[in-house]
Amino acid sequence: MTNTTLDNLITDLASGTVQVVDLTVNLDENTPVIGLPEEFKQSPTFKMEKISHFDDAGPAWYWNKFSCGEHTGTHFDAPGHWVTGKDYSDGCTDTIKPQDLVAPANVIDVTKECAENPDYLLTPEKVQEWEAEHGKIEKDSWLLMNSGWSKRSVEDFLNYAEDGPHTPGPSVECVKFLVEERDVIGFGTETIGTDAGQAFLFDPQFPSHHLMHGANKFGLASLTNLDKLPPKGSVLITPPLKIVNGSGSPLRVLALVS
Amino acid sequence: MTNTTLDNLITDLASGTVQVVDLTVNLDENTPVIGLPEEFKQSPTFKMEKISHFDDAGPAWYWNKFSCGEHTGTHFDAPGHWVTGKDYSDGCTDTIKPQDLVAPANVIDVTKECAENPDYLLTPEKVQEWEAEHGKIEKDSWLLMNSGWSKRSVEDFLNYAEDGPHTPGPSVECVKFLVEERDVIGFGTETIGTDAGQAFLFDPQFPSHHLMHGANKFGLASLTNLDKLPPKGSVLITPPLKIVNGSGSPLRVLALVS
Repeated sequence: MTNTTLDNLITDLASGTVQVVDLTVNLDENTPVIGLPEEFKQSPTFKMEKISHFDDAGPAWYWNKFSCGEHTGTHFDAPGHWVTGKDYSDGCTDTIKPQDLVAPANVIDVTKECAENPDYLLTPEKVQEWEAEHGKIEKDSWLLMNSGWSKRSVEDFLNYAEDGPHTPGPSVECVKFLVEERDVIGFGTETIGTDAGQAFLFDPQFPSHHLMHGANKFGLASLTNLDKLPPKGSVLITPPLKIVNGSGSPLRVLALVS
Repeated sequence: MTNTTLDNLITDLASGTVQVVDLTVNLDENTPVIGLPEEFKQSPTFKMEKISHFDDAGPAWYWNKFSCGEHTGTHFDAPGHWVTGKDYSDGCTDTIKPQDLVAPANVIDVTKECAENPDYLLTPEKVQEWEAEHGKIEKDSWLLMNSGWSKRSVEDFLNYAEDGPHTPGPSVECVKFLVEERDVIGFGTETIGTDAGQAFLFDPQFPSHHLMHGANKFGLASLTNLDKLPPKGSVLITPPLKIVNGSGSPLRVLALVS
């Protein structure tokens, strides 16, 4: 049986009418990794070691081994990453339904707000203002927050101070709204994690983890190029590695854009 | 500007008219890794180590670190993996054009031939016979060889003997045909690598590496579920990790199927 949609997609990809946009940061030893308070165990940085490079160890081939934490660089947070999502039978990287790995994206531009205030919190009111202009956020679509954070230097990206990191994210009310009123598939951001830097002070702490994963929804962090997506109409491809019982994974996030 | 193709894709994904098929094997410590003659350096197996699991190391979160070779489990071979492809400026995992990571798939069923003969070699004649029935292989599309190999036990999957591994793959003439006459984007297989087990005896050795990567084309190995794809009409999503100067990477391969 022929499907016109896929035939058209093949044609549009070949002609460039549909573009593939890469929303992924480089993975190397300089890729920033989240730092936790020192009483908790830390996630290691990305490391790579040559196996062979057209030499005695492998004359015709080049390859490396590498190691990292599951939540390194542009990465996927599975529901099983958080205590509130630990019991979902489809909540780890190997058990998530494949159909959930391709979904529409809504992109909200808050670059101006975040440039003025690194602790900027996205609110339900701001999202509804966006919806009034661009249309309602559909069930099972992503909300991506374009904070402009990917354009910062590593130091300004992490933005640590004595009282913890200062980076933007969603408010508790905003996460509740996205989960309960919009039933999104997940929330994605350009910052190092899906929660604001000061979200350890919120109630509940880390709402984008606590509430999203508690509702079997996903997170995407350290995205880049969100300014290259339209507010609505793009299709997000988010395939984590199929790590057995994985809590998440670095991944290549692509968007199909017209 | 609205694009009907992407709008239709969003609708068809939501309704299930377009299905997302996972072509990826599980990644864990049992995932088979290719073994080379002992004079060469080997690629390590996948290893995972817990960072925290709802315990003192991280009371509300679970995460792991992991390590592996770039060519582990279902993996992507970039042109820079081979000496013949080492000078392409877009030949590593971080430099490949994003547009090349979504492409049409052609799937040739040779399960019967491979069950009878583990050293079965795909020939240009067999491919042209397939084309006579299903249509010509388009420029910049994948040829995927369904050998049925993913259904084997680990021992029968590797199928080692004293004179090396016995697993199917393309003949030298077949790779030449696919590169020169069809200009495919790459060749994919269910076996541990893109070349036949005995391809160290061919001239040139390992044609699917030597000739494909020499022409800046890709490889996909250790795929599964190829029997769930139609011969033609599916769209393959093949996003390797964005490892800087990477020769390849484990990845999640998805197919859009009607």
